[in-house]
Formats: sequence, C-alpha cells, structure tokens
Amino acid sequence: VLAARTDDTNPLSGLVVADRPEPDVPEGWRLVRVKAAALNHHDLWSLRGVGLRSDELPRILGMDAAGVDEDGNPVVVHAVIADPDAGRGDEVNDPRRSLLSERYDGTFAEHLVVPARNLLPKPDALDDVEAACLPTAWLTAYRMLLRSGARPGDTILVQGAGGGVSTAAIVLAGAMGFRVWVATRDAERGRRAANLGADAVFDRGERLPERVDAVLDSVGAATWGHSLRAVRPGGTVVVCGATSGDPSPVELNRIFYQQIRIVGVTMGSRDELAGLLAFCAARNIRPVIDRVLPLHQAIEGFAALEAGDVFGKIVFTIP
Amino acid sequence: VLAARTDDTNPLSGLVVADRPEPDVPEGWRLVRVKAAALNHHDLWSLRGVGLRSDELPRILGMDAAGVDEDGNPVVVHAVIADPDAGRGDEVNDPRRSLLSERYDGTFAEHLVVPARNLLPKPDALDDVEAACLPTAWLTAYRMLLRSGARPGDTILVQGAGGGVSTAAIVLAGAMGFRVWVATRDAERGRRAANLGADAVFDRGERLPERVDAVLDSVGAATWGHSLRAVRPGGTVVVCGATSGDPSPVELNRIFYQQIRIVGVTMGSRDELAGLLAFCAARNIRPVIDRVLPLHQAIEGFAALEAGDVFGKIVFTIP
Amino acid sequence: VLAARTDDTNPLSGLVVADRPEPDVPEGWRLVRVKAAALNHHDLWSLRGVGLRSDELPRILGMDAAGVDEDGNPVVVHAVIADPDAGRGDEVNDPRRSLLSERYDGTFAEHLVVPARNLLPKPDALDDVEAACLPTAWLTAYRMLLRSGARPGDTILVQGAGGGVSTAAIVLAGAMGFRVWVATRDAERGRRAANLGADAVFDRGERLPERVDAVLDSVGAATWGHSLRAVRPGGTVVVCGATSGDPSPVELNRIFYQQIRIVGVTMGSRDELAGLLAFCAARNIRPVIDRVLPLHQAIEGFAALEAGDVFGKIVFTIP
Amino acid sequence: VLAARTDDTNPLSGLVVADRPEPDVPEGWRLVRVKAAALNHHDLWSLRGVGLRSDELPRILGMDAAGVDEDGNPVVVHAVIADPDAGRGDEVNDPRRSLLSERYDGTFAEHLVVPARNLLPKPDALDDVEAACLPTAWLTAYRMLLRSGARPGDTILVQGAGGGVSTAAIVLAGAMGFRVWVATRDAERGRRAANLGADAVFDRGERLPERVDAVLDSVGAATWGHSLRAVRPGGTVVVCGATSGDPSPVELNRIFYQQIRIVGVTMGSRDELAGLLAFCAARNIRPVIDRVLPLHQAIEGFAALEAGDVFGKIVFTIP
Ligand SMILES: [Zn+2]
Ligand SMILES: [Zn+2]
Ligand SMILES: [Zn+2]
Ligand SMILES: [Zn+2]
Repeated sequence: VLAARTDDTNPLSGLVVADRPEPDVPEGWRLVRVKAAALNHHDLWSLRGVGLRSDELPRILGMDAAGVDEDGNPVVVHAVIADPDAGRGDEVNDPRRSLLSERYDGTFAEHLVVPARNLLPKPDALDDVEAACLPTAWLTAYRMLLRSGARPGDTILVQGAGGGVSTAAIVLAGAMGFRVWVATRDAERGRRAANLGADAVFDRGERLPERVDAVLDSVGAATWGHSLRAVRPGGTVVVCGATSGDPSPVELNRIFYQQIRIVGVTMGSRDELAGLLAFCAARNIRPVIDRVLPLHQAIEGFAALEAGDVFGKIVFTIP
Repeated sequence: VLAARTDDTNPLSGLVVADRPEPDVPEGWRLVRVKAAALNHHDLWSLRGVGLRSDELPRILGMDAAGVDEDGNPVVVHAVIADPDAGRGDEVNDPRRSLLSERYDGTFAEHLVVPARNLLPKPDALDDVEAACLPTAWLTAYRMLLRSGARPGDTILVQGAGGGVSTAAIVLAGAMGFRVWVATRDAERGRRAANLGADAVFDRGERLPERVDAVLDSVGAATWGHSLRAVRPGGTVVVCGATSGDPSPVELNRIFYQQIRIVGVTMGSRDELAGLLAFCAARNIRPVIDRVLPLHQAIEGFAALEAGDVFGKIVFTIP
Repeated sequence: VLAARTDDTNPLSGLVVADRPEPDVPEGWRLVRVKAAALNHHDLWSLRGVGLRSDELPRILGMDAAGVDEDGNPVVVHAVIADPDAGRGDEVNDPRRSLLSERYDGTFAEHLVVPARNLLPKPDALDDVEAACLPTAWLTAYRMLLRSGARPGDTILVQGAGGGVSTAAIVLAGAMGFRVWVATRDAERGRRAANLGADAVFDRGERLPERVDAVLDSVGAATWGHSLRAVRPGGTVVVCGATSGDPSPVELNRIFYQQIRIVGVTMGSRDELAGLLAFCAARNIRPVIDRVLPLHQAIEGFAALEAGDVFGKIVFTIP
Repeated sequence: VLAARTDDTNPLSGLVVADRPEPDVPEGWRLVRVKAAALNHHDLWSLRGVGLRSDELPRILGMDAAGVDEDGNPVVVHAVIADPDAGRGDEVNDPRRSLLSERYDGTFAEHLVVPARNLLPKPDALDDVEAACLPTAWLTAYRMLLRSGARPGDTILVQGAGGGVSTAAIVLAGAMGFRVWVATRDAERGRRAANLGADAVFDRGERLPERVDAVLDSVGAATWGHSLRAVRPGGTVVVCGATSGDPSPVELNRIFYQQIRIVGVTMGSRDELAGLLAFCAARNIRPVIDRVLPLHQAIEGFAALEAGDVFGKIVFTIP
C-alpha cells in the first residue's frame, strides 16, 4: 500500500511516500480502507524522531482517519490504542496507551489496522474529509471544554488562533453556549478567528476587560503567566500543549491563593469521540479545513504545517 | 401603586387590579420601579389560594420582573427570597425560602421591594420585556439542563411544548449543543416547537427511534411512564412540575435496574440567574413571548393562560 | 463439577446440587477454581425463575465468588458480564449486560468461566470467604454511597438492617466518614446494626430528629414515603431494590419542590470493585458474615435467606 | 481587652500583647468572647508585614477562634470575611474576601467582632481548644481532600508532616476511607505521622512503591517535581502553600501528557466548616494539638512555630 512513513535509518531526514506491504490483521483488530487522513503537529514531531524508538522504524505516520471497514461501513478511527479497563474509566490514562503511529502504524496509508473498538460509525452529516479532522485536535478541544468547569454563558479564553486545537475550540465553544475570546499575536489569524465566531479577539498577553471563567492553553511558556492572570478566582486553565516551551516559574502562590485549577488534557476517550461526532451532526458543526491534498503530496502539507502557515486542518485524501 | 393582587377575602374570586399603598423598604432591601413582569402558572395557583394563607391576603401576585432600581440602574429581579447560607450552597434549598408573591408582595405592581441581593444588572442585549421572562420559567429550564447530566451532542427529550418551561428548554438546549426532541399531544404546538429549533417532534407517549440521554418533564402523571421508558440506562429524568397530576406507580424496578436518576428542580439560584442572563447575552438568545399586555389588562393574560391558549410567555408592561 | 443449579424443567421446584460437566473456556475467557461463593436474593429469585428463560435451564446459580485462576493467582470475580465500551463509561449501563447466573453459568460450582476482565487480584488482607462477599451486595452499597452526593460528616439513613446491602452500607458508610442512621422494624436487627457501628437506630417510618443528607433504600413500597420525608431539601435517595413492592404514588410535587434526587443503582463497575477491594484492605474493613456452609449444604443457606433469618452474608465454601 | 497585635510602626519588630479598646459592633456583626484561639503560619507572616498595609496597623492577629456569642451560645468562628453571593457559590473566591486579621482585627483578643454569618454552633463533642484548631488548617485540609477527586480506598500522599495542614490531612484522610502515605525529611515527624495513622511514611522525594491517586502539597519548590511523578495518570495534586518557595519549571509536558490536575485551595467556605465540625463530631475526630498556652504567653507559641518545632496546632487560651 502507498504510505507516508519515516525513513528507515534517519527519522530526521524526513518523509518518504512509498509502497508498503499490506498489513496483517490480528485477532480482534479490523482492516480499514483509509479515504481521508488529517495531519497533526504530532506527525511533525514523529518525523523528528520524538516518541519513536529506532528499532520501531520505519513507521507509517498519521493519527486521524476516516474510511470504510471490511464490510463497507463508513467509519471514523479513534487514535488512542489502550485498554478501556485501565485508566479508571478513561483509557487515555492507561499507562500503556499509545497513539496511532507510535507503537502501531498510522493512518497515512491506504490500509490501516486497528482494534475493533477503535472504529466508530461515521455520521452521514460529515463527509470523509470532515470526519478525518475530528479524532485528534477536535477531540482534544472537545475534552478541554468538557473539563473546563464552565457553564453555558461563561467566557472562555482560547490562547492562540489558527492551530487545529484552537480553531476547534473556537467553533465548539460557541456551539456549547460559551462566550469565546481569543488571544493571538497574529492579527490576520485574529480576523479569521472572529469570522469563525470568536466574540472578541485580543493581542497575546493583552489585559482583558474582565477575568474569564476558563482558559484553553496549548502555547505554554509564552502564555502561562497571562493565562493565570486572565482567569477568575476559582477558574480553570486547561492545558494540552506547550508549543513555546515549558513555563517557569509555576506562580504557585497565585494558583492556591486564587484557587485556580490547572487541568492537563491529551486526546479523549472513544466515548467522547462518539460524543463529538454526535455533537457535530446534531448542531451542524463542520471542522475548519485549511487545505485538502492527495496523500502523494503529503510533503506539501508537512511543509506548510512546519512553516506555521495554516488555519485549521490539513487533510490528505486517498482516492 | 397600581397592582394585580388576589382579593381580600376570597382568593378564588379572582384578580383585582387596583391601587395599593406604596411599599415600605426594610433595611437591606431595595425599591424597584417595575417596567415589565411576566406571568407564570404559579400566579394562577396563587389566585386559587394555593400556597397562600388567608391571613396574608391581599397579596400582590407576580414572580418575574425587570425594571430600574432607585439609582436608575436597569435590573432583573431574582424571585427566590432565601438565605444564601442556607441550603448547602443552593439557596433554593433553604427550608424557609419563599418565592415572590408568597410571603412578600410580588411583581405585578408599579413598585416592588426585594432584598438587595435579589437585583441583578440587566444586560443591554435584552429589553425589559425579554428580561422579565427569565427569572422563573427560563431559569428553571436552565437549571434543568445544567442538572441533566447530558453533554453537548446528547439528545434531550422535552415533554410538552408551548409552556414557559418547555419553550425555554427547547431554545436553551439547542444553544447548549444538545439535540432536542419534543413530545406533545398538540400538533400545532409541535409545529411551533420545530420552528423554535426542535430537531424532531413526536406525539405524546410515542415510541422514540432511540433512547435519549435525558428527559425534561413538567407534565407528571401523563408522561412519567413514557419518560422512564424513553431514557437510556444511566440517563436522567429532570422533573419540575406535575401539571397532569401525581404519577403512580413509581416503577422503582425500572429506576434501579436501569440506573435512572430522577432530579427534582424548582427555580434556580441567584448565581444561575446571572449565568442565564450572560448566556442569553452571549449567544443572542431571546425568550419566546406569546403576547405583551399592559398590566391593567392582566385579566386577559390570566384567562389565556388558564385556557392553555399560549405558546411562550405572557408579559405585562407598566409604562 | 459439583454445582448448585436450578432444576431442568421447573425452576420453582428448587435447588439441585449435582455433578455438572466441566465448562468450556472460550477465547478471552478464564477458568476459575471457586473456593468461596456468597448467596444473594438474586439467587432466590432465579430459583423462582425470575430473569431466566426456560430454554436456558438448567443454569448454575451464584453471582459472588473468590478463588484461584489457572495460574494459581487468588482472584475475586466481577459479576457483571458487559462491554466496557458500552454504557457511557459504566458497563452496568450496557443494555446487553448480564449478571453471572443469568445468561452464563454462575459461581455455585467448583469451576467457573468468565471473561478475563472479570477477574481482579484478591488482596492478601481478605480471605476467600470475606472476598466472596464483596462483588454484589457490598459493591452495590459502595456505589450507592459514592452516588449519594454526601460528604464526610453528612448523615446517611439506611432503610433496613440485616440484609447484605444494608449491613454493607452501615459498615462502609462509617468508614467513609458519614454519620450512620438505620431504620428497621426489627428491634433485634437494630441492636446488631448498632453493634456494627450505626450511630442511631429508629423504627421503620419513625420521625427522625432531623433531616438526613441521603437515604439508601432497598425496601421500596414500605419506605418510599418515609425516605422522601426523611431527606433534606436537595438531598438524595439512592434506591437499589424494592423488596416490599413498587411504591405508589410518586409524590412528584415533593420531589421537585424539595429538589430531591432519586438515584437508581444496581451492582457496580469492575473499576469500582477494584476500589472496594482497595478500600477494605486499606481501612481494615471486613464483611459481615451470617454463616459459612459447604456448598453441598447450599439448600440450608437458601432456606435461611428465604426465611429472612440472616444478618449479613451467607457464604458457601468448596474445599 | 487583652490582645496580641503587630506593633504600631514596625510590623517586623514583633508581637505586642497589650490592652486594646473594646471593639465596636457594626450592624449585622456579632461580638464574641474568645475562649481559645489557634496559631497559624499566616500569623507569622502578618508579623513580618506580609499582607498588611502600614496604615492598617496596629492589627490584632489570629484567624482561628472558639468562644461564646452575646447570648452565651458556644460558637466556632469562620475566618473568611466575604460575600456569600460573590465567588460563584464559593465565598473564598470573592475577589474582595479577607481573612480575619487582614482587614479586620483577628482572634488573639478577649473580644472579637465578626459578621453574624461567621459564627457556627460549636458541637458539644469538641471543647473550645479543639474547636479553635479547625477554621484554618483543618478546614483547608478538609477542602483539599474534598477536591482531591479521590474515592474511598484510594491512596493519598501528604507532602510533609507536623504542620497544621499536614497533620489534619493525615487524620481526616484516614477517617474518609483513604490509604494515607506521608513523605517527610524528618524521621521523628515521620514516626509521629505513623502514630497518627499514616499507613506508610517515606523520605521526602523517595520513589514510592506505586503511583498515588492524589497528592496534598503545601511545600512547593522542594516537592513539586516529586508530586508530579508520584501521582498516577489522571490523578490530582492539590496545593495550598509553597513554604519552600515557588517551583520551577512547571513541567507542563508531564501535566498534559499524564492528564494531571493541579487544584489550588485556600481555606474553605462557611458551609464546609459546618461540614468539618459535623465530621469531627460524627466520627470522633480530635485535632492534633502541639501545646496549649495562655494568650499572654503567645510569644512562646510564635517562637516555637518560627523555629519549626511543632507537631500539630498551638492554641492560646483566654480564661
Ligand atoms: Zn506521541
Ligand atoms: Zn409557591
Ligand atoms: Zn438478574
Ligand atoms: Zn492573608
């Protein structure tokens, strides 16, 4: 099968799109004919070797996919390979969890094999390209909002605009009944965030007119202090990444004195992906898509994401 | 002041709109110039003497109001008179709580006096008539949805269409990200519910295509069994009334075997009213209004509500 | 293997203890050598044919067991056969769940086969007889307390004393930090409840000195009204059975006006059974055991339970 | 009245125990005859001028008290002066909250005036000295445990032993059904923690036999990294102080990748103090008291706390 994978010997040398042997299907797993697969920052890191052991290479990249199963049913693929009985009711907390493309081959390939439980029915309301956007960035944003402790009518500050998680958060937060504020250092992205439905857009680090009920932060070092000052006493800062590096110091006095909650989130459960699919179908929500490319032009997508020149998801299609 | 009140000696004889003396303002209370006041079923029951002691008559009716305080600030009135320190963080659970028009004179009057904490700033986004709809029926629907245990994407069944709580629930549920189903015995109301945004409308008691995550039920005897069969295992039936009488039997086997939660709700807290006001302002939500009448025509409104001939709220204005 | 099962043709005729063929072990299931198995009311109902289809007879009864797996590891058996991915994070809500002895043979046998996930390590702190008491009645009581909404220092009323769930609730509630009140119509059981640690004991239906924060009710018709009057506004009535029949009427006005929550519970999840085992080990909790009998005297245990002449669990041992 | 206060002109010069004029009692406030008052680190910081403005000096110190109100009722004093309607249901989140001895005179005095809502009935089960220990350190520990997300049977790690919060946490956690682990750099305090009921004691920073469900941390810089490594994926680190300074860096990657929650806590609400009092009475819990001194020997208590030479609370009595 055609597949985008890391190079055999040097993960940093970059991406190879080439033929791969057809995968075996273990007992209890299913074969999926991938029709669309979305790109994530995680794939860029994998290309650089982060999270991959050299004895596991070459590895097919890609976490997000929609396609059809062996019986021809349209499916969306859940990217977390984990034991539903580990992790105290949240498989993401299984200490042995892995994400597609880490220990098992990923979604940038014509064929994909995953455990049976990792396939969910694709709602008719979403086409393959749309559905392929949901399992990583959109699922993460959905879980961040569910864990924000906010109620409809509350104000959510999204740190950053343009990335998969932040564009998802803007759209989903509005559809959940929140007032949505965005802070970004990029004026053009700010304008596009407003077009997506953000109620107000601020410069990164700008003092806000009032404190917010929750902050969604994937930026890290560059926004940590602002997030802690932006949230009201008793409010929540949900974190899912640190693209600008690890913050320092913690400002622990502020955290306990203001009774702030910091909530770490990564991905979501199979059950939450089902919830997100139902949510998109019920409220007519469509993912924000930057561009759609055929898989053999995957390199163009990786380059755009590397350059930071995206607003929404990049999706690869396999005809 | 002009006021709609129950008759001095016989609460069943009906409504008297007449002059009343100006109210005194106790220490810590505030005087409000009422500009709009909405009608609730509770007012009909009060007219019939339910919940009123004969030695407390005459009593000015009305629970919902918007107006201006003594400093000219536009305000919305919270209708629950209670101690915020009673009720374990929910003043509605204060055993000594009363609602406006029960122990203290209500809102169908030019002037109203309430504890200072019962006044909240009216958002600019809502006019007086709209704001006056929120403190009882809309607040109850908001709390019901908050306590439904449902998450965005879940399906909510609303039993009934047309009443203040059910029309509020239809609108608010959609704006919170739920799929909204309505069951009603009245086809015309069903059509109007669909126009409000209900995703599907069913006959009362009709078998649904699938089980729902939560039911909002204000009907009681006529819908209890249907609600218990409509909800999925582990789902929630939120109840706020029993207009058709007390159900029987409980069907306790179904409740524990299916692990159903029954959640009783009445009104909401001051803090939730603030949340609802913010929600309406943030997501551009407007209450469903059946008709607006000047207070001196209040009898016409009571008659319409008695006849069941309403879809949304009836609001009285005081110029 | 020796096994207690329902009779082939007439489930009401009672119990047969006889040889059964060795069970097959399906892929993904495990064989357990049962060492102790506890008796539940559910087994009595099964004897009467409740919940069993005639084409499924004979069926080995029994839901609770401790024993050793094929590798000699001491194990406790989780009695709920269900898909961890169904039921929105609570396998008990899987619409296709079954309990041991319903669709699959139960624990009153030398050998038992269950899905691999249904085996949990037995803590050293508990012996086989003690561990065998936990998976049904004690797990139900544990979940009821977890879902009571009460916090340490709150008062819990347990309706009934003597049964497996009520004795478990008395012991567990105290160890969780609650004040424990018991209502029973049997003075002798009341005395024994006090010996178990109940802080106060009342007659069934007796007016309590103050309202409680939560009620645990497995009695049904005979206690429903008392439970609704005993609980404070905003409190919770957790129900897991209706041994005295289905209550009537609902008293819905009281439920919504007092904002009472009714929470149906049956059994618990695998994860909660792990929690309960850890809890018993950590806080030195031992189940309340009425008597221990060899399995071939199972009939004596069934008769005692039928006669209501028990205080705590009856456990069968298989040497 | 006799009172321990900061010096008029130089807060660092230390403590003055001297006569003070009788306080005025504003409308809605109450006068308390203090019988016992406990010492907190907060009082040491106040002595050094932290949190006090020079124009507010002299200020009577002290946050914790038990005594009698003007009607002779035994009372416990809630130390948070705040509006119950601010802070979204948690008065501690009122941005204008203050603690006794900050904006208003504190408890180290014969007479104290506080808002009426800040007095709670003292349970008979606790004497004045015991009750005076609860409103700050014990209340904080109680809230930390309530917000730990742990369930009975879970393991809680307490960072530190000996301080008011850590000794409270050890005792309360056991009485709530948790397994209690303690990490301390002081072997003697470790022994005393074990005597209090800690199930295991470790050196500070020592690798634990398994990950814990929640950590309670008041130490800060010296324990932050250990706390993050000690907690299981999806677990919670509750923080209420940073006696060793502000940690650095945050280790944000660990927080989101392991889905850790950091929960800031300071003090608790009036309602939680009521819960704590009920809890101590119901489960026969007694605070850990280091020593009891008459108020005129307050300097001895301050010196001991400054020297770190305490295990439990220091209480001053006023005969
Ligand atoms: Zn990874
Ligand atoms: Zn009323
Ligand atoms: Zn059954
Ligand atoms: Zn302070």
